[in-house]
Amino acid sequence: MTQNFRHIPDEAFGSKAIVRIRDIDAVVHNYNLFKAKADATGTICAAVLKGDVYGLQIKDVAPALYNAGARYFFIEELGEGIELRGLLPYDNIHIYALGGLLHNEEAYFKRFDIVPCLNSLEQLKRWNSYCKNHGKGSAIIHLDTHMNRLGFLDDEVLELSENFEILTSHLEIEFYISHFFDIKGSDPSNCYKQLDVLNDYRSKLPFRPVSFACTDSVILLDNKIFNFDMIRPGIGLVGGAPNANSPISPDARHTMEVYAKISQIKTVKQGETIGYGGAYKTKRDIRLALVHIGYKHGYLRLLSEIDSNPKGVYMFIAGYKIPVIGKISSGATTVDVTDVPEEILDKYHYAEVIGPNVDIKFLADISGCYDILGALGVVNSRISDYTLDAFNNKNWNS
Amino acid sequence: MTQNFRHIPDEAFGSKAIVRIRDIDAVVHNYNLFKAKADATGTICAAVLKGDVYGLQIKDVAPALYNAGARYFFIEELGEGIELRGLLPYDNIHIYALGGLLHNEEAYFKRFDIVPCLNSLEQLKRWNSYCKNHGKGSAIIHLDTHMNRLGFLDDEVLELSENFEILTSHLEIEFYISHFFDIKGSDPSNCYKQLDVLNDYRSKLPFRPVSFACTDSVILLDNKIFNFDMIRPGIGLVGGAPNANSPISPDARHTMEVYAKISQIKTVKQGETIGYGGAYKTKRDIRLALVHIGYKHGYLRLLSEIDSNPKGVYMFIAGYKIPVIGKISSGATTVDVTDVPEEILDKYHYAEVIGPNVDIKFLADISGCYDILGALGVVNSRISDYTLDAFNNKNWNS
Repeated sequence: MTQNFRHIPDEAFGSKAIVRIRDIDAVVHNYNLFKAKADATGTICAAVLKGDVYGLQIKDVAPALYNAGARYFFIEELGEGIELRGLLPYDNIHIYALGGLLHNEEAYFKRFDIVPCLNSLEQLKRWNSYCKNHGKGSAIIHLDTHMNRLGFLDDEVLELSENFEILTSHLEIEFYISHFFDIKGSDPSNCYKQLDVLNDYRSKLPFRPVSFACTDSVILLDNKIFNFDMIRPGIGLVGGAPNANSPISPDARHTMEVYAKISQIKTVKQGETIGYGGAYKTKRDIRLALVHIGYKHGYLRLLSEIDSNPKGVYMFIAGYKIPVIGKISSGATTVDVTDVPEEILDKYHYAEVIGPNVDIKFLADISGCYDILGALGVVNSRISDYTLDAFNNKNWNS
Repeated sequence: MTQNFRHIPDEAFGSKAIVRIRDIDAVVHNYNLFKAKADATGTICAAVLKGDVYGLQIKDVAPALYNAGARYFFIEELGEGIELRGLLPYDNIHIYALGGLLHNEEAYFKRFDIVPCLNSLEQLKRWNSYCKNHGKGSAIIHLDTHMNRLGFLDDEVLELSENFEILTSHLEIEFYISHFFDIKGSDPSNCYKQLDVLNDYRSKLPFRPVSFACTDSVILLDNKIFNFDMIRPGIGLVGGAPNANSPISPDARHTMEVYAKISQIKTVKQGETIGYGGAYKTKRDIRLALVHIGYKHGYLRLLSEIDSNPKGVYMFIAGYKIPVIGKISSGATTVDVTDVPEEILDKYHYAEVIGPNVDIKFLADISGCYDILGALGVVNSRISDYTLDAFNNKNWNS
């Protein structure tokens, strides 16, 4: 296992305790895995880049995906769309804002040519009215197939179907989208129920292409049924999957590595408590170390190991799993290094927090979703941040 | 209640769905509450500014506290200390790094005159050795009074006591610190146990001043016993407390407000599920709204309302609590607006996420700590960020 543990030169840390390495080529690689599934059914493969691409950073990811041929992009917020407009050539780039057309945003959507996913009749009326006065606009319509979150629900679909021409008089409705709400488990029956609702809606509405499948469904469901006209992978681009047992493909690659410095290895006797609240009690005499990453760096506190709610989270050092013990602090996490040989701890002064040996899918299974990835990917000055290319091209002294 | 709901002009949102307002004067106000408690026992009142002051931003807070007379500052990481050095006059400003002296950081500590909280013999030996070759240095020593996290534990205290002069031959040890691990509940007995350990350690070591009390202990414990020579409030500066029932003082003020846009109010029938996993079922016919803030903006997913683990979190709009229902998504949260009159929803297009009506102490009680505050305070371009002064001084068009 040791050969997979990356050697980080001291200079990569500089005055900071955390090093993050983002593998943009791996994002493109994962995109191509989805694209192959899309191509097989004649489906467009879009890319969802919301949340700064879940921490992988849109400024690096968007141009790389563009170079790989991607032309259809989903973001969530208007502000993300404006940023994306500045990163790519203008022509033939389609930008869709999943969050919808919020109050007072019409002029921005028009000016930056971002297409809103209209989530309600109110948004549709407001956009149609704006486009009446400012020139024809594009839109997609989000149908809520009983996720009961974003989109047109039964009564609004009915009103839309009865007045489609009037309601969209100054709009081109490019396509319909919907979204799955229950894809983590092994039972896809809710997805099929949503498909029934979607088909019912479609039977009431004028024909338009459809984007239904999201990241995870591409794996779990029948591509021929669910792909429709456009798939839109998101978390799968960065190495995610519905759960650790359902990777996109055996070839899917992890995209982010985070390393943090270790300090002060010390012996703690059996039966002592560790950290805040005394919530974890040692089961034997242990050697404990501090790893200098905590919840303020996005290492979510819910990954803590407390006796009343054990999670089994670990970090990694040169061939050895090092279990998290006790509550995660704002800037530090306690780990059990009892089983790590002295010479390893002498040689390596940092631990792998996520990376080739600590799979993001494993952590996401524990936290329940991929909040950990975006959290660890937060852009700030407290973390030494590199793309893998920049890291490899650096002329390290050591 | 309505008069406490802040009117936010549309322009404050611009192209962004979230507005954050940071009240720096309130931080200074809270600092002075602590300072009064410190003054009463002849104790220095330091300030802990780690984690970008829990989201209040060090660039604004540090100069304001300096102007209020603060001269002793704790940060956690070296990088935070370097930033702080650039924000304040150099002379007579004491900067202490709680995270300790990590591998390879010696030259930075020396160059920026930051004082490490030495957390282990290894750190002490490394700093003493460095200062032997680069000129006498300062340090404080962190005694681990059985929190079993940072600091010198029994055996290392013993070795330090037996070889103090040699081990600190090129250092000035300014003081000792320690830290409480169990201050949230109403039972302070663990704090008194830690006090016993501290006094045992002190009896073995040469005399130095002591900083023991942290934010919360100032409230819960006997100031005359626990204040010692320096207190170091942190989360209390920004409105936090051990729990919602133990405010620092009736005069403590909240320091951060966050507002997010509401969209697409719709009717969902009784017995339908809401959002991901179908984890929340409606108990009646409801009117549901989307609030455009989610875990990618720091609105932690663990605040979700699911039937198997209800939390009771709410937002607020003009006199009305609006309960969170269902799982919090990456960029949106579903809320129940059934009980909010139509005219209120027509007039206000945003909800208070934290602020005067949604106390950060309440949210911290639910999440178990103040991770929510730092998370919501994250510095990025997706949030319209203002200090209260900047907000008030802006010449809004509306």
